[in-house]
Amino acid sequence: MIIHLKDNIGKESAENIAKDISGKLIYDEDKYIIITSSKKNIIPKKYENKVDESFIIESDIQLSSRNYINETRKIKINNIEVGGDSMNTLMITGPCSIENKDQIEKCAKLLKENRLTTLRAGCFKPRTSPYSFQGLGLEGLKMLSDVRDKYGFNIISEVKDTSHVSDVIEYTDIIQIGAKAMYDHGILRETGRQKKPVLLKRGFGSNLQEFVQAAEFILSEGNPNVMLCERGIRTFETKTRFTLDLCGVSFLKEHTNLPIILDTSHAMGYSYGVPDLTRACVAMGIDGLLIESHPDPSKALSDASQQLNFQEFNVMFESLKPICKAVNRNLI
Amino acid sequence: MIIHLKDNIGKESAENIAKDISGKLIYDEDKYIIITSSKKNIIPKKYENKVDESFIIESDIQLSSRNYINETRKIKINNIEVGGDSMNTLMITGPCSIENKDQIEKCAKLLKENRLTTLRAGCFKPRTSPYSFQGLGLEGLKMLSDVRDKYGFNIISEVKDTSHVSDVIEYTDIIQIGAKAMYDHGILRETGRQKKPVLLKRGFGSNLQEFVQAAEFILSEGNPNVMLCERGIRTFETKTRFTLDLCGVSFLKEHTNLPIILDTSHAMGYSYGVPDLTRACVAMGIDGLLIESHPDPSKALSDASQQLNFQEFNVMFESLKPICKAVNRNLI
Amino acid sequence: MIIHLKDNIGKESAENIAKDISGKLIYDEDKYIIITSSKKNIIPKKYENKVDESFIIESDIQLSSRNYINETRKIKINNIEVGGDSMNTLMITGPCSIENKDQIEKCAKLLKENRLTTLRAGCFKPRTSPYSFQGLGLEGLKMLSDVRDKYGFNIISEVKDTSHVSDVIEYTDIIQIGAKAMYDHGILRETGRQKKPVLLKRGFGSNLQEFVQAAEFILSEGNPNVMLCERGIRTFETKTRFTLDLCGVSFLKEHTNLPIILDTSHAMGYSYGVPDLTRACVAMGIDGLLIESHPDPSKALSDASQQLNFQEFNVMFESLKPICKAVNRNLI
Amino acid sequence: MIIHLKDNIGKESAENIAKDISGKLIYDEDKYIIITSSKKNIIPKKYENKVDESFIIESDIQLSSRNYINETRKIKINNIEVGGDSMNTLMITGPCSIENKDQIEKCAKLLKENRLTTLRAGCFKPRTSPYSFQGLGLEGLKMLSDVRDKYGFNIISEVKDTSHVSDVIEYTDIIQIGAKAMYDHGILRETGRQKKPVLLKRGFGSNLQEFVQAAEFILSEGNPNVMLCERGIRTFETKTRFTLDLCGVSFLKEHTNLPIILDTSHAMGYSYGVPDLTRACVAMGIDGLLIESHPDPSKALSDASQQLNFQEFNVMFESLKPICKAVNRNLI
Repeated sequence: MIIHLKDNIGKESAENIAKDISGKLIYDEDKYIIITSSKKNIIPKKYENKVDESFIIESDIQLSSRNYINETRKIKINNIEVGGDSMNTLMITGPCSIENKDQIEKCAKLLKENRLTTLRAGCFKPRTSPYSFQGLGLEGLKMLSDVRDKYGFNIISEVKDTSHVSDVIEYTDIIQIGAKAMYDHGILRETGRQKKPVLLKRGFGSNLQEFVQAAEFILSEGNPNVMLCERGIRTFETKTRFTLDLCGVSFLKEHTNLPIILDTSHAMGYSYGVPDLTRACVAMGIDGLLIESHPDPSKALSDASQQLNFQEFNVMFESLKPICKAVNRNLI
Repeated sequence: MIIHLKDNIGKESAENIAKDISGKLIYDEDKYIIITSSKKNIIPKKYENKVDESFIIESDIQLSSRNYINETRKIKINNIEVGGDSMNTLMITGPCSIENKDQIEKCAKLLKENRLTTLRAGCFKPRTSPYSFQGLGLEGLKMLSDVRDKYGFNIISEVKDTSHVSDVIEYTDIIQIGAKAMYDHGILRETGRQKKPVLLKRGFGSNLQEFVQAAEFILSEGNPNVMLCERGIRTFETKTRFTLDLCGVSFLKEHTNLPIILDTSHAMGYSYGVPDLTRACVAMGIDGLLIESHPDPSKALSDASQQLNFQEFNVMFESLKPICKAVNRNLI
Repeated sequence: MIIHLKDNIGKESAENIAKDISGKLIYDEDKYIIITSSKKNIIPKKYENKVDESFIIESDIQLSSRNYINETRKIKINNIEVGGDSMNTLMITGPCSIENKDQIEKCAKLLKENRLTTLRAGCFKPRTSPYSFQGLGLEGLKMLSDVRDKYGFNIISEVKDTSHVSDVIEYTDIIQIGAKAMYDHGILRETGRQKKPVLLKRGFGSNLQEFVQAAEFILSEGNPNVMLCERGIRTFETKTRFTLDLCGVSFLKEHTNLPIILDTSHAMGYSYGVPDLTRACVAMGIDGLLIESHPDPSKALSDASQQLNFQEFNVMFESLKPICKAVNRNLI
Repeated sequence: MIIHLKDNIGKESAENIAKDISGKLIYDEDKYIIITSSKKNIIPKKYENKVDESFIIESDIQLSSRNYINETRKIKINNIEVGGDSMNTLMITGPCSIENKDQIEKCAKLLKENRLTTLRAGCFKPRTSPYSFQGLGLEGLKMLSDVRDKYGFNIISEVKDTSHVSDVIEYTDIIQIGAKAMYDHGILRETGRQKKPVLLKRGFGSNLQEFVQAAEFILSEGNPNVMLCERGIRTFETKTRFTLDLCGVSFLKEHTNLPIILDTSHAMGYSYGVPDLTRACVAMGIDGLLIESHPDPSKALSDASQQLNFQEFNVMFESLKPICKAVNRNLI
């Protein structure tokens, strides 16, 4: 149950009520809100006069539910917006990993030429093998930060475990929680206790219920700025790296109020399929895209096979424009 | 290995060579063609002067491979075409099951109003439970055949096991092999020995290799008119009925020469998601769609939750037109 | 609902009632039984005095349910029994495919030496590729039949589509319905209309509900002699051929009344893992095993990697005996 | 490649070589060992005389490979041993979550009565919903530690993210890395830098390659005491909570040198199936079991449906003894 307390209620009083009914208390847009387990659906008599509005929600998908807010949340990322009535589709691109200054500078130029606003690059890489390149870490974050200052981009980078979550929060404009870290309560809690937008990737073995409930962890800590990112699930099919779950995206659009970003690069795993899949995603009317591009993919230190070179990116990008127009979206 | 024999070779000689090298012999467009296991890659010396051209293909995806024919095959369905240079996207629609004359007459009118050409309806239903409605069988096929004669549509209906394959071949214009029958060699063989187009659905537990190899069974019997239909695979996700595998579609477009049809109704299992998914498919530039529609889905005898009513269908259909235009396709 | 009609009811009367309430009529052990959809749970007033007993079952798993018969059915295979109070674990072994007389004669000797009773060998092979060995077909069935006559074994072989189901019924003692044919209504119907035992394999993409409902098709045609065979499901794991679902076996033991046979060879796909997995299955207290063995697996025409050679088989077989004893089972 | 440096080599020299060839250096049993990416397979000439022995391993499963150590590693957990030549099968049991002192005291008595040595109980619970019981945290660890001091048990508890890994390391005898944390490099690194035994659970969406490579992260930090725990993977089957992957266990036994523990409680998700599955696991000859038991499962604050009550546990435990004997294992 979600309970909006009355405006004039004080912090102390709100905290006492939350404690008494075993709920979580958040403060959002000048309002105190308590969320309890969905199993509870009765407000104790003594508190009835403190309550402005309440929402009984059947499952533990509560703050993210369309039964609570019946539209897509609007999220501000510095000077740009996604969701709400913005009709924006945000093209986020850049390399899998930041490798050096020259590489990231080239990527910045790609964005600049296409008037794009948001640069992605991984610094802490959740590699499967301990014997592969593990990313530049904090040094990479600082390089990215420099690029932001120079070009005025927004920067997004991935956190892979709790040990460096505060660094990623400090240096980026959007915090990306990687697929392998989707259940990491340490990360969910830390990113929930601040207000920068969070892009939460679906674990490739996670079902939609778990995915949205991970978002609930962030929301219920008090950060309303969560975006969901579908990036392919693991199935029996091995000709492609993962299986992009667009049926799941339809479900998320119907049942949740969170903006939806699609990562077609990781889903496909091969650059040849990325343009077609990206066109498909755009036609669904989604809020953003996460596409890996690299000045020279064959030399990339990670995910070489799935990154687009700049020419491939540009051709694809042009092809998205008429589709965006057909579905009444602005490609930014 | 695929071997094109010289034009002047006689039937008897072709048969002898095929037998000698354990290959399958087909006769396509006035040419004798022998296909052997992909493990063979040498033509015996004594036959070299009988061979016009040969293709060594690495896997047992041979006749359907882009390494053999580097474009999408053109398939004629009476007066219409898909694949090749046609740039057509064929909208096939109709109810899950034909239930009675009145119902199918209403569906025919929906097609007529939208100038569509191809009507689908199931007669032999591969139901999971023996205690559910099993379809009208042969009687249904005859009703469909009457509708064709009256309106000039092409008719497509499903074969579910070998016992009625000859009936489905006789009464339809496109033979649909259902997902549960994808491995049925009896059906594959019979539909391969005639020339009507075959729409082969991917089994929901079948990987892409097996899917295309099932098509090879038909092609290698001599029927070149095979279309592949992706209709969702079974994954751990249960909020939707199946998971539409568009990564797999990208693979099929890249590696095979067969037209690709998408069935979003079965993939999603819920009508609310069908329009969005269908828009996504169209934006990928595919050859056709298979959409379930019903005059009154709530009363349907099968698949009630996933069929569109006519208004929903019409709204979706209009929305597809600008996307088709954006990707340079004709919606027919 | 399952309805047992009174003993003195005539055939005609039973048929009329079945027709009137849209149920399926079977005649089992001198009793007329009607099964309706599980959605029906009321017997019309006018028939109440014709009914001996009735069972309301919640799902369409009815005749196979423990809510109907609360023990494992006993099935007679000529002179041997499985299920019921027999406490037998039946070891079925033999090659993937029958290849020639010499090979099958050697296999027969393996059985003889170990006092085994049931020989398996495939004749109609559901191969994935049209360019691989497809089995000896009817000729193979006749060879198997000769071996039976010579040694007194029971013979089991697989039917893969409806076109040859009558041949398999004629020549074998147990009819095996292959995993790829689990949904084949033509086969289910034909094997249901006779009384020879049927071993129904679970499709590798089929869930337990569908698996047991396929058995219901056979049972509801009137053949009570159905055994369920788990042989591995398809998952994301590719280091092994399939994933043996022993959790599913626990479910089947708890909820159904059908004997359960385990095929560890196909599940694992590699001979090295077969003995360990077979020991695991035996310790669960199951009704039978289906193990591939071959005089020289490296030369097998199909499934070379997963067949045990005779020495491996013998070592494994000895190791099963103390485990059988520990769980109070007779290995036959 | 794994390189054993000569005994007399100093630390500084070892570090220099490791750095020069981009390898990881560990010190194990008085030996310096360098591990490089498996892509490297040549030792520079200048270092050849510093090398005692080297192992070229094809994949990045290196330290855990049978190609490196061709037997199961022996792991000491205080006074007991698993793996190696011990032939022990370790029964670890206890509740899903520690809830209060009374509950854990009752569990301790169950262990005492059965002469068991190792108590499990969760303190930091990786719950899917933020609105469910999240565990007692550090307070729970301290209670467990008291029980250890009182009874002389070994204690195992789960770490779910990096923020509390040092607490779990401090208070337990075996550190359990939960399935949802399998990819957590922060945890893997911290547990690799100390020597207490680690039980690493397989992520339910993780394949065997990733699972063993996660173990490599720990091993390559210098902790040789890693046990692998299979606890069920996520598949399309929903009648059971997960699917226990015993084919995968066969693979792990064949290809890795790490002891294997089986968790049948989480795999099944329902107590009725746990005894049968546990018997199956024991018959495979594995190194340990992780079974949830609770004084009153119906009142458990988490995983109520899958925990055994004490009577169920005792009945199952007795039944394991003859199977252990049959496969020559000591149940401790």
